[in-house]
Amino acid sequence: METIAKAKSHGGVQGVYRHASETCKCDMTFALFLPPQAEQGPVPLLWYLSGLTCTHQNVMDKGEYRQLAAELGIAVICPDTSPRGDTIPDEPDNWQFGKGAGFYLDATEAPFAEHYRMYSYVTDELPRLIAAQFPIDMTRQAITGHSMGGHGALTIALKNPERFRSVSAFAPIVQPSTAGWSRPALEKYLGPDETAWRAYDATLLIEDGHRVAEILVDQGTADGFLDEGLRPWLLQEACDKSGIPLTLNMREGYDHSYFFISTFMGDHLRWHAERLKK
Amino acid sequence: METIAKAKSHGGVQGVYRHASETCKCDMTFALFLPPQAEQGPVPLLWYLSGLTCTHQNVMDKGEYRQLAAELGIAVICPDTSPRGDTIPDEPDNWQFGKGAGFYLDATEAPFAEHYRMYSYVTDELPRLIAAQFPIDMTRQAITGHSMGGHGALTIALKNPERFRSVSAFAPIVQPSTAGWSRPALEKYLGPDETAWRAYDATLLIEDGHRVAEILVDQGTADGFLDEGLRPWLLQEACDKSGIPLTLNMREGYDHSYFFISTFMGDHLRWHAERLKK
Repeated sequence: METIAKAKSHGGVQGVYRHASETCKCDMTFALFLPPQAEQGPVPLLWYLSGLTCTHQNVMDKGEYRQLAAELGIAVICPDTSPRGDTIPDEPDNWQFGKGAGFYLDATEAPFAEHYRMYSYVTDELPRLIAAQFPIDMTRQAITGHSMGGHGALTIALKNPERFRSVSAFAPIVQPSTAGWSRPALEKYLGPDETAWRAYDATLLIEDGHRVAEILVDQGTADGFLDEGLRPWLLQEACDKSGIPLTLNMREGYDHSYFFISTFMGDHLRWHAERLKK
Repeated sequence: METIAKAKSHGGVQGVYRHASETCKCDMTFALFLPPQAEQGPVPLLWYLSGLTCTHQNVMDKGEYRQLAAELGIAVICPDTSPRGDTIPDEPDNWQFGKGAGFYLDATEAPFAEHYRMYSYVTDELPRLIAAQFPIDMTRQAITGHSMGGHGALTIALKNPERFRSVSAFAPIVQPSTAGWSRPALEKYLGPDETAWRAYDATLLIEDGHRVAEILVDQGTADGFLDEGLRPWLLQEACDKSGIPLTLNMREGYDHSYFFISTFMGDHLRWHAERLKK
């Protein structure tokens, strides 16, 4: 693992690291913020999964998470959204597929299956690396994300409820298997048989019996993707049917950008901190 | 004036606007954050002047000023750092001169004098535009900035003490007339006669009798430009001699980046808010 950059910020350290990923068969970059408390011993960890077109950097620059994470003593890890590099199959003109659009799944279709394994990367390889390299208490993990990353957070938490004490999301894609901007990606990554897609769809995972203790979602009412791509009411329905307590905050006038995310980042950090206590 | 972008953030509105500047004879872009209190009536204004290579966008993305500015009811304006456009004389390979490096002065030398008039732009044209277009209480203004923008904030406040209730800076260039990265720019913009440079040098303005009520400066000790380019001790000397109270916070381990600025942005906002009270 190589340190790309390291800067003191809000009393902690914001680092950017690169490593050769066995899972994705390419170099992968991630950002990790360690709060000042990490100097005294292991700290809990919040995963932040980013949305379409993003890298680790968007939330690192614009997420405004460091001040409160430092105060609360929580590390924040921000992985990339897909494999990267010249050898990775891609559709350069399509922002909803390929690089920057890994959808946090393990592809099964050629030629994507060899590299597009973001589910295994985020749930297996990267946690092992983090546990080995940084003072993190891996028994205290939480997960959140934005848009495609909100989809990632929800589906990963639903499939690994024993690992994450809490899950939240900002404007998540809650039902990618029926949304226009994600259906083509699921088909290319996973093949035409839609039963294989259920493992990467939060509402269908809930339908299939997966459970988490509770969910927090913030969603802007002025979000241009709300009606076609996001549709949080489908998550509300699934939660209502299954008995999962969902706190869905519809935020008047907020859009899909980091201006929205940064506004409610503090609420999410506090919510996770409460559940990450020893 | 044209609205380029507008987004709700932390209860207020982060806008980006473009207008044809008479002063710079080109289109100029700036960012303005209006806190929620601006819906009820005029609010005070903090100017944030950016450093070399920056536009309005760096601090808008990475400055982390909105949460507290919204809480305190302060508008924040972030101008660009130079004239822009294909017709503007420039040295494209030189990051310390030309576009992105206006040094907040009015150039007198050809071919720069026609467009490089950032002093007049920031102290005359832009305030008039802001006063006409937005609910700002122009009797309550404060100014800050980073690096070259810290130089801008200090020199502009020293020359306009009646306008700004308070002035602060992050890692400012305090004596550009003797620093290697600014001397060539001053010579090209203002000519070889160094007496003309004194009007754009904070320490020499103080030597020449200009005064402000007090100054707040934060400076990182791990800042790679500290010893050669910034040298806050020269400002300390000038303030000691002239009796200007200077609060100079040397911040252990912090560098020159927005990771540093965003860490202490809250302190500066609170300090200005105290002095911007009615």
